[in-house]
Amino acid sequence: MSERSIIDTLSFRAGEVILYPGRVGPRDRIYRVESGLVRIQSVDNDGNALTLRFVKEGGYFGEEALTGEKRSYHAEAAVDTRIAQVSTANLTPEETLEIAGHLVEALSQAYDAIHRLTTQRLRHRVARAMLELADTPLAFRDSRGRITIRATHDEIAAAVGSVRETVTKIIGELTREGVIKSGYGRILLLDLQTLRELADSRGPA
Amino acid sequence: MSERSIIDTLSFRAGEVILYPGRVGPRDRIYRVESGLVRIQSVDNDGNALTLRFVKEGGYFGEEALTGEKRSYHAEAAVDTRIAQVSTANLTPEETLEIAGHLVEALSQAYDAIHRLTTQRLRHRVARAMLELADTPLAFRDSRGRITIRATHDEIAAAVGSVRETVTKIIGELTREGVIKSGYGRILLLDLQTLRELADSRGPA
Repeated sequence: MSERSIIDTLSFRAGEVILYPGRVGPRDRIYRVESGLVRIQSVDNDGNALTLRFVKEGGYFGEEALTGEKRSYHAEAAVDTRIAQVSTANLTPEETLEIAGHLVEALSQAYDAIHRLTTQRLRHRVARAMLELADTPLAFRDSRGRITIRATHDEIAAAVGSVRETVTKIIGELTREGVIKSGYGRILLLDLQTLRELADSRGPA
Repeated sequence: MSERSIIDTLSFRAGEVILYPGRVGPRDRIYRVESGLVRIQSVDNDGNALTLRFVKEGGYFGEEALTGEKRSYHAEAAVDTRIAQVSTANLTPEETLEIAGHLVEALSQAYDAIHRLTTQRLRHRVARAMLELADTPLAFRDSRGRITIRATHDEIAAAVGSVRETVTKIIGELTREGVIKSGYGRILLLDLQTLRELADSRGPA
């Protein structure tokens, strides 16, 4: 990203909302994650959250400004996060292609999510969501190299398109089976191999 | 789209496959629908189809070539269709933004589909799918101005992420209620108002 395209950079603490839904953003800018992690999430009238994607370092959001669409989601800092406002007025062809590449990736992930929602059982989607979180700044390793993810049951439910009660039941099962260990807002991943097998299969018919 | 960006144009008959999954496309080109309609569809190991999106005139597909990802879907001509191969090597900034805009729209539709899959009952998703098809070249009007869509129960099932047996049951209900009239590979939309109300609500809890 060339210097001239960056309008400014902004810092957000974990949990702060960066963009609100229902607005039309300025069409001349989109946002790039410089460090941290952004959660893109829609919330329906009943207050049920649905995580649409995580945007990692180097990724973009606020893309609806390019078409003048109304924003349909919250963008929230999942951890302490720094973002750059990028002007779309002076983009080089390479920069525009970089943004298009991010959109292609996001679209491919969304299609994958649709595929899983229509074919994969919830238990398996939960395993998949935990592995995805393990690959973000929401995860950390302890001295024995084991991975813990910072996630509430509500957040896992939002990631898999379900409700907390059902997800809590599945987390209870996985805990009893020794695959994970669930604590307050944290989940220790004990058996990555089993999680991967679950994530890669759709479950019993 | 400037002349220099178009490599060539190709014609496909309704039902012909344009792109196959599992391949990496040439990174220097994507495809633009000049006329007709393209169905982007994934098929799982059990042969269940899932329609990811329809690409209308002016829209693009084959976007995974921009990132070098392997293609995960079929692209098929839904009606007689003409497509242009567009070189990504000589795109003007305006052209790249046009492609990015298409991707933004596709992403927004995919998020909408995820939202509906997690909150909306099948009967309501079926109504929505019928209205979407009514806005494509798969629809035609009879002399009384009524809209018929060309769609099999299998195709409706693929559009809503369900299976034919279940969708046939719902189509039967809607037919008995006088909302639609289902024929061989065709569905006559009799009561657009009711279809719109169904499409806009999630259904009883």
